[in-house]
Amino acid sequence: MFHYLEEELEQLKTKIIKMGSLVEEQIEFSIRALFEGNLDLAKTVIRRDDEVDKYDIKIDKHCQRIFALTQPVAFDLRLIMSALMINNDLERMGDIAVNISERAEPLLGYGELLRKMRVDEMSAKVKKIVKMSIDCFVNSDAELAKMIILMDVEVDKLDKEIFDLLTKEMKAYPDLIVPCSHILTLIRNIERLSDHASNIAEDVIFLVDAKIIKHSKDPDNLKQKE
Amino acid sequence: MFHYLEEELEQLKTKIIKMGSLVEEQIEFSIRALFEGNLDLAKTVIRRDDEVDKYDIKIDKHCQRIFALTQPVAFDLRLIMSALMINNDLERMGDIAVNISERAEPLLGYGELLRKMRVDEMSAKVKKIVKMSIDCFVNSDAELAKMIILMDVEVDKLDKEIFDLLTKEMKAYPDLIVPCSHILTLIRNIERLSDHASNIAEDVIFLVDAKIIKHSKDPDNLKQKE
Repeated sequence: MFHYLEEELEQLKTKIIKMGSLVEEQIEFSIRALFEGNLDLAKTVIRRDDEVDKYDIKIDKHCQRIFALTQPVAFDLRLIMSALMINNDLERMGDIAVNISERAEPLLGYGELLRKMRVDEMSAKVKKIVKMSIDCFVNSDAELAKMIILMDVEVDKLDKEIFDLLTKEMKAYPDLIVPCSHILTLIRNIERLSDHASNIAEDVIFLVDAKIIKHSKDPDNLKQKE
Repeated sequence: MFHYLEEELEQLKTKIIKMGSLVEEQIEFSIRALFEGNLDLAKTVIRRDDEVDKYDIKIDKHCQRIFALTQPVAFDLRLIMSALMINNDLERMGDIAVNISERAEPLLGYGELLRKMRVDEMSAKVKKIVKMSIDCFVNSDAELAKMIILMDVEVDKLDKEIFDLLTKEMKAYPDLIVPCSHILTLIRNIERLSDHASNIAEDVIFLVDAKIIKHSKDPDNLKQKE
């Protein structure tokens, strides 16, 4: 029974890692499509969301099977609970990559404006955070997870700065009201990617340290789970 | 053992229902604070988010305890998995109520503009959907859940119409660029409430019918779980 559980958990972890890589690529492609005005690439992202959804269903089923057939405790139990939550976050990050891709068309030809509004800076930060969130799960690295939560705060700050930049730009150039409104929606989406990465980081801390960090602003001031 | 499990599941369900009522009230208050320009009420919502977070941690722990002490199968297993997911959605809906409340100050004095931009219409629809999502969990009502998923599509449509209304308003009255930008962020948040309610509906269908509806646009064309 124990060997069986061990093997199942290894397979579950592999599935999450594969899904994570796919979602990371979807995000990378959606941002590239946006900045390069590459509508074919945007369509590829939208079409490939099906693959992300398939992983989501597979992982849900896998967790259900492990729960039904074994009685996991301690670390193993937390691993499956975390897997369920991380799966959920990754699936929604995949949806956000689709939303970003859908902005490629209305923002076609506005690469310069996107850069002026510091969307490239925000995207680079968030892509890094997303990569780190998957790495911290792969390596069960709680220290990396704590860094992610602090970086998410920086993204929120940048988000507010871009909001002000956008309203100033619209006031100065009323012709840019429509593209700037699309960018406003876009940065909401990019900011949410960072939130989901931060959720994954919290799950990894729960997994490794058996602590619940969520709802605590200070990662060093953790609440004990039990 | 069976009696113990039954009792635990009943207690878990009660906790979710209590959390659902609290979150529903948080949303109700946040929207009222916005339209009435009531900053005290907005602050109350922000302060009370701690209570939502406490429920979230309690429910997570409760699920973990049930998994560790019993070996639930079939409906019971699905109930706990759904509880974990619904808890997650409710907690994020609570965060969104906070975000909405934070817009009360920059939108102070813009009640008329909010109505002109049909935010009252969108809020009313979404409050109804949120209420239905909690009801469908309480009553394990899969039919009601399917209605919610269809209503979420209507909200997405209204969201796009309001986007156009807002850009037209900003072009016509550049003085309104800042409040309109806040409204643009606000409707993103209101729309996300509807998405979370829709996720809860999907979980209820999974719970009742043992089917995975997520990723299917047509609620009658469900994918079998196993």
